Amino acid sequence: MTDLVTFGETMIRLSPPDDERLETTTELEVRAAGAESNVAVAAARLGTEAVWTSKLPDSPLGRRVTSELESYGLETDPVLSDEGRQGTYYIEFAGEPRGTDVIYDRADAAVTTARAEELPIERIRESEWFYTSGITPALSDTLEETTEELLRAAREARTKTAFDLNYRSKLWSPAAARETLTGLFEHVDVLVTAVRDARNVLDATGDREAIARELADEWGFETVVLTLGAEGALAVHDGDLTRQSAFETETLDPIGTGDAFVGAFLAKRIGGGDIGGALEYGAATAALKRTIPGDIAVVTSVEVESVIDTAESGISR
Amino acid sequence: MTDLVTFGETMIRLSPPDDERLETTTELEVRAAGAESNVAVAAARLGTEAVWTSKLPDSPLGRRVTSELESYGLETDPVLSDEGRQGTYYIEFAGEPRGTDVIYDRADAAVTTARAEELPIERIRESEWFYTSGITPALSDTLEETTEELLRAAREARTKTAFDLNYRSKLWSPAAARETLTGLFEHVDVLVTAVRDARNVLDATGDREAIARELADEWGFETVVLTLGAEGALAVHDGDLTRQSAFETETLDPIGTGDAFVGAFLAKRIGGGDIGGALEYGAATAALKRTIPGDIAVVTSVEVESVIDTAESGISR
Amino acid sequence: MTDLVTFGETMIRLSPPDDERLETTTELEVRAAGAESNVAVAAARLGTEAVWTSKLPDSPLGRRVTSELESYGLETDPVLSDEGRQGTYYIEFAGEPRGTDVIYDRADAAVTTARAEELPIERIRESEWFYTSGITPALSDTLEETTEELLRAAREARTKTAFDLNYRSKLWSPAAARETLTGLFEHVDVLVTAVRDARNVLDATGDREAIARELADEWGFETVVLTLGAEGALAVHDGDLTRQSAFETETLDPIGTGDAFVGAFLAKRIGGGDIGGALEYGAATAALKRTIPGDIAVVTSVEVESVIDTAESGISR
Amino acid sequence: MTDLVTFGETMIRLSPPDDERLETTTELEVRAAGAESNVAVAAARLGTEAVWTSKLPDSPLGRRVTSELESYGLETDPVLSDEGRQGTYYIEFAGEPRGTDVIYDRADAAVTTARAEELPIERIRESEWFYTSGITPALSDTLEETTEELLRAAREARTKTAFDLNYRSKLWSPAAARETLTGLFEHVDVLVTAVRDARNVLDATGDREAIARELADEWGFETVVLTLGAEGALAVHDGDLTRQSAFETETLDPIGTGDAFVGAFLAKRIGGGDIGGALEYGAATAALKRTIPGDIAVVTSVEVESVIDTAESGISR
Amino acid sequence: MTDLVTFGETMIRLSPPDDERLETTTELEVRAAGAESNVAVAAARLGTEAVWTSKLPDSPLGRRVTSELESYGLETDPVLSDEGRQGTYYIEFAGEPRGTDVIYDRADAAVTTARAEELPIERIRESEWFYTSGITPALSDTLEETTEELLRAAREARTKTAFDLNYRSKLWSPAAARETLTGLFEHVDVLVTAVRDARNVLDATGDREAIARELADEWGFETVVLTLGAEGALAVHDGDLTRQSAFETETLDPIGTGDAFVGAFLAKRIGGGDIGGALEYGAATAALKRTIPGDIAVVTSVEVESVIDTAESGISR
Amino acid sequence: MTDLVTFGETMIRLSPPDDERLETTTELEVRAAGAESNVAVAAARLGTEAVWTSKLPDSPLGRRVTSELESYGLETDPVLSDEGRQGTYYIEFAGEPRGTDVIYDRADAAVTTARAEELPIERIRESEWFYTSGITPALSDTLEETTEELLRAAREARTKTAFDLNYRSKLWSPAAARETLTGLFEHVDVLVTAVRDARNVLDATGDREAIARELADEWGFETVVLTLGAEGALAVHDGDLTRQSAFETETLDPIGTGDAFVGAFLAKRIGGGDIGGALEYGAATAALKRTIPGDIAVVTSVEVESVIDTAESGISR
Repeated sequence: MTDLVTFGETMIRLSPPDDERLETTTELEVRAAGAESNVAVAAARLGTEAVWTSKLPDSPLGRRVTSELESYGLETDPVLSDEGRQGTYYIEFAGEPRGTDVIYDRADAAVTTARAEELPIERIRESEWFYTSGITPALSDTLEETTEELLRAAREARTKTAFDLNYRSKLWSPAAARETLTGLFEHVDVLVTAVRDARNVLDATGDREAIARELADEWGFETVVLTLGAEGALAVHDGDLTRQSAFETETLDPIGTGDAFVGAFLAKRIGGGDIGGALEYGAATAALKRTIPGDIAVVTSVEVESVIDTAESGISR
Repeated sequence: MTDLVTFGETMIRLSPPDDERLETTTELEVRAAGAESNVAVAAARLGTEAVWTSKLPDSPLGRRVTSELESYGLETDPVLSDEGRQGTYYIEFAGEPRGTDVIYDRADAAVTTARAEELPIERIRESEWFYTSGITPALSDTLEETTEELLRAAREARTKTAFDLNYRSKLWSPAAARETLTGLFEHVDVLVTAVRDARNVLDATGDREAIARELADEWGFETVVLTLGAEGALAVHDGDLTRQSAFETETLDPIGTGDAFVGAFLAKRIGGGDIGGALEYGAATAALKRTIPGDIAVVTSVEVESVIDTAESGISR
Repeated sequence: MTDLVTFGETMIRLSPPDDERLETTTELEVRAAGAESNVAVAAARLGTEAVWTSKLPDSPLGRRVTSELESYGLETDPVLSDEGRQGTYYIEFAGEPRGTDVIYDRADAAVTTARAEELPIERIRESEWFYTSGITPALSDTLEETTEELLRAAREARTKTAFDLNYRSKLWSPAAARETLTGLFEHVDVLVTAVRDARNVLDATGDREAIARELADEWGFETVVLTLGAEGALAVHDGDLTRQSAFETETLDPIGTGDAFVGAFLAKRIGGGDIGGALEYGAATAALKRTIPGDIAVVTSVEVESVIDTAESGISR
Repeated sequence: MTDLVTFGETMIRLSPPDDERLETTTELEVRAAGAESNVAVAAARLGTEAVWTSKLPDSPLGRRVTSELESYGLETDPVLSDEGRQGTYYIEFAGEPRGTDVIYDRADAAVTTARAEELPIERIRESEWFYTSGITPALSDTLEETTEELLRAAREARTKTAFDLNYRSKLWSPAAARETLTGLFEHVDVLVTAVRDARNVLDATGDREAIARELADEWGFETVVLTLGAEGALAVHDGDLTRQSAFETETLDPIGTGDAFVGAFLAKRIGGGDIGGALEYGAATAALKRTIPGDIAVVTSVEVESVIDTAESGISR
Repeated sequence: MTDLVTFGETMIRLSPPDDERLETTTELEVRAAGAESNVAVAAARLGTEAVWTSKLPDSPLGRRVTSELESYGLETDPVLSDEGRQGTYYIEFAGEPRGTDVIYDRADAAVTTARAEELPIERIRESEWFYTSGITPALSDTLEETTEELLRAAREARTKTAFDLNYRSKLWSPAAARETLTGLFEHVDVLVTAVRDARNVLDATGDREAIARELADEWGFETVVLTLGAEGALAVHDGDLTRQSAFETETLDPIGTGDAFVGAFLAKRIGGGDIGGALEYGAATAALKRTIPGDIAVVTSVEVESVIDTAESGISR
Repeated sequence: MTDLVTFGETMIRLSPPDDERLETTTELEVRAAGAESNVAVAAARLGTEAVWTSKLPDSPLGRRVTSELESYGLETDPVLSDEGRQGTYYIEFAGEPRGTDVIYDRADAAVTTARAEELPIERIRESEWFYTSGITPALSDTLEETTEELLRAAREARTKTAFDLNYRSKLWSPAAARETLTGLFEHVDVLVTAVRDARNVLDATGDREAIARELADEWGFETVVLTLGAEGALAVHDGDLTRQSAFETETLDPIGTGDAFVGAFLAKRIGGGDIGGALEYGAATAALKRTIPGDIAVVTSVEVESVIDTAESGISR
């Protein structure tokens, strides 16, 4: 039986090397990147039977995506299509004040036409967990419907559902996001959100703990995980609050940090860990991710545990 | 005064190095590429005051295109737009029997919305020549109209018009191309076409000479240039036929060979050369192009003339 | 059910770029490479449910191997070990008369200690086909025994067995190879061998057809496939002889050509094809392989069929 | 009408990648680099009609320079010559205590023979501003004369003149520089200098403000801009003093910071900005430059304004 | 006459670029690396007539080692062998908490079979100094004997002997190291050790000074140098204690820092410097090394002296 | 005792990768290159005790040259100077009709000031052979004198002298070359020249054999070697004529082919080989060189002999 199915868009990420500008670069580095596959890979590498599904063009570019994801040990089960593009995004890394900049080129991607009936919905029903994020319904009206149907199908089949708010201002406004996303919350067991998005999109108020408790109460989530950037994370689960600080890290590539956190959190929960252990596992994996080029946490459980042990023992390596 | 204005889409060309497959590559080489800018650059480098116009996204990707074109000495005068993508294409180079493969990702490019009234139509009217190709009207209904309007405006202003049939089977069928393109022919002074496309798209029959004469007669072109691949080219101009054989070349990158030919042909004509000299100049530039990576003929007139002189003197370098 | 299990060593292949010498290179390209995984990947890409098994160090280097193989769509099922190295080989590409040179650094690889009882022998028993090659028993005494046990187990379970002679003069002498390999032949259904090795190692005499028939008769193989380099291949199957010429190809990297042939031959046979179709499929895949960098035939069935169709129709692309 | 003409040497900059040593590198990165073209590019990108003139060899190396400069949107108008080399410089980047090291190889560059009468002096006369720096007269006796003539011609035509002291200890001694440069000051409206050079070359004494006021008084400059490294800049203009602190930045490549400052300062002044706005614009552009590889500030006005706005609002991005 | 002979293994170091993971890299950077050749190169570059000896495979890989070492100005005098591998090591650079990781692949290297009688022992006898480290006897029983014989031969010939403890936990346990290494101490004049190894391997107790004095007393070393990482080094020589703080440095590649220190220390001693001068020279060279990619201190004496002068004058460059 | 001393300029060779144009390249490959060091390296690798001397700037660029040369096993003994540049040359590789193009940037190189009295003339006197080429006296008046003095000194000391005409049309005219070079011939034992240069520079007439005999007779050379490109070489030695055909080769980089020939020819002569053996050795080394990137024949005697043996046995590898 599958432990975790995730659904969402995976793009080809194109980035100039060595902080070169997009305007002048003669070369682009190529990687697969997408929130839901990032989560699935992190979970898979940490012991979970994880499957990622999506809709991809039946082309070398679509194969570029599955090829890389499978190289990390992930099972992929996408629908292949003759219509729709392969979504891409360009990322220009730079120090401040230039700052890292992202240009999406994901309109009309094949995934935007994915309907629930063509996706492997039986695998979701038979899986222990299902995960998607707030990026998916933002991509098209069809995907808004599909996301709702998949979450509903999962819940009906007693598959646990996890959902990361993942607000993207380049895709929609806070108000539009709020309306769509809150409509999905009735199907969600575990909500993950950056505290900033909780305030900005969900109009949450008060301090962090109050926000987590209020979200849990208002929408009836079993678990609410609030990510706090450099200050770690906190969770309210069945009314109990747990805090986790962040592990120190030297950042090479910050993209995908949140997904690494969620993937490891889910892996630990699926493996029977309690909320505290899962937050700690998530935070350690997130710290490792930031040292790794690309969106994806190419880690091992030995490495994650070593980060936790080293920090606990107070010994710097 | 401008000698030549060209109008059309310029894409970002992405290619894996060293015959690597798109499915597995970790790197892509980046270049600007488009038939009409290829022609304009070749002409500009060979002494023509050439301007390329188009519609581009106002983004680093749009600037990537103008930046590279201007590096070759071309003047660019594009409309910048907040709507529409930057078109791209992926090209996987390979020996036979794998063969080089192209994947277009140009749908919904900004240029597909370009209307005549937003383009620098006055520059076309004041230019000596105007050039576009059969790719342009294939890209959108809007561009079909725009192409017709620009050609018409040029002719009304006594700007000479040159048009390369440039049939692309990935964009439309021969029948659709025929219907649209022949509708434009009344505005065209100089038609360039591969003999293969003349047969396949225009239903031309007979031997090469017959085809050239028949096209000239049927549509009233001042000049018809038929390109013959490794066998060179021939032209019918005011009823006279001229033949030009191809120069020997070691091919590194064949893309853009035809555009190099046309750009050099126009440069020579604009500079007052006769048809024979222009064909020879085109053929020599085309031979040089094939030794140069990328779509664009980064050549000098000294080099083109050296190719001609060396071949004439029978001395191998 | 699995269609094909292959067993053998996969190395990390290290090669200087651009014909640079090993003595002076500052950079090495890294790829996974091994006859039995090459065969499994080719078969998997052409529609076969293929699994590769081996013994690998439980290290980043071992994971480098499985990571790349899985990126091609292959299922891997290796034993992981704390003992034994990751085998490597260095390859220096060069034109003649320098010639391409290989340096093996595979002694004491983890796989040399692989015993049948630790390998997934049940998967072999339940598979339709099992494949290994003459490289495997050459690597260690343990592997000589293991190869014999796996072939025996396969035959006992009515799993068909295919075996490529794959003589490597850097591993053993013709005499040593003959003694060991002929001892395995009683467990082999399909023998593949280069005609040169048949002569040199198996002391076969006569012309090609005679050699194929003689091998089939002497050892009772159901099928004997003789590969002939640029002259293609021929097979004797149930007493019938079939010939296949080679497809023309521009060679970028010849390593793995034979494995691509065998993988595609097996894929076609497993899919129900007859011997002639399988030889043709193998020859077309081999031709494609030579245009692809690395040991592995990263192809699709569409591409293989296109090679066959193009050649049959006499149309050059 | 042209807003700004700059005159000076642009070299080819050669640098080993990744902090490799020149002694051992097998590869060099290639860029165009020169104070006066750096200034012109920065100004051009921020809205100024800027032209750079110089004298270059009529060779691929000379074209390498103009090609790159034009890719940034700069107009170039160099004299081409059959005599004289293309100047180059080698730069080895390194952390402390090794430190970044520069080796000039610019002796006998074509530009060292440039006489005023062969340069496009009419464009200077018709331009709003003219800029050169203290590097130019240091390069040859001819250039010392030429610099004087160009500045004089500009002033006679009521073209405003800006001059950056740009002392280079590898080219001349402080005493030699003082003698030559002060001889030019009568033709200069705006003097820019690092406070360190003011002290070391011009023998200025006192605190920063005193130095700026004293220089303005002594030589009658309309504006004196003193750059202070990490502490920003200050200016005395018509007797009024204005201060500007530096914007925080993560430095990737510090070369060209001062030129980015001057180019943006001039762009703002040319566009009608006051001294305070011009200093702020300069400082923000300088901060951006330090995040960009190469000598040149490949920025947009949107980016520069965003740096200013972000800093003013006190919000870190 | 030779000033210094060193003996030990030099490996080929393979590292993924740009903090990429070994598991996913497609490229490895190649360098020569080994404690004893690192020391010899540093000494040679700082004015010492140094020779490195070892045993290498007579292959392109063995030549890769000598080729690179000789490029730094080192004389190499290895035995070439048809048996034994070329040792390699893989190094994956990463920020914390991932951390840099090393995988040795050095078992059965040719050097592990090196016997004293095949090595150029006469050169050691005729040299002023001989150096090896605690890595060498850890590599094989043969090398344990050989190390003892070479040190003994040196002492008998009044060649001064220097020995760096260089404990490697991946090669042996502290107890095994202690037993072997202390057996060699009777032949050693100058012992260098990290204070951490002195405690961990030699069971030294007390503060740093006490440890240095105790080691000197217990084993009769003429000089004991204790390296203290970021806190510099201290030495006890003929009963006198000297301290040296570390020079500030921006670390690009820390590997080989200790060897750079020892090589420069020996160069200064060989050139007649006192202990204090040698420690200072060592510390400055170590600081430079950390800015240089690779294991080896590619420095000049001018650079080392500049580091010392700058620090002494309190002027930051 | 040294077998061979060579004297001449070694440049830094800068070439764009992958047939990119100099005008557009962002990267240059760096190598050491010079006729006389090319000869010395080839000879050294084939068993000769060879030393190369020259005059170099005392800079990282000068060290770049010696570092690379020593990596090939050559002993270098240059004078280091604070005056004069490091000569460079740019080479743009391309297929026909573009063709490979060279741009020298070697004016005012340090070597142009080298006087005999500062060079290690004693090493020449004590060497068995001395070699320089017609490039050296073309570089400056000083070098014309120096070349004459070194050749004279060699002859006086009974050191054999070999001289390659090496006419370079970018350095001087045939008439100037003839005047200078023939003035040196009285000091030359072995003259090597391309037959084309013999005709063009020395005004030799008749067929090849006649030319060789005539040169030997007219100037009293002990040996005249005429190189004939793809047709091999011939020699007249003590009145006897010997012919050698060229070995087949796949050309990657033709630069340095002649130097490889001469270095191997001299190595064989120095080792006691007869003229026929030396020509064969030269031709085989030249064939290998063409498969190796860079100017230098990084070969081994095993490889050279293998080329000869394979060709003799008529077996293609």
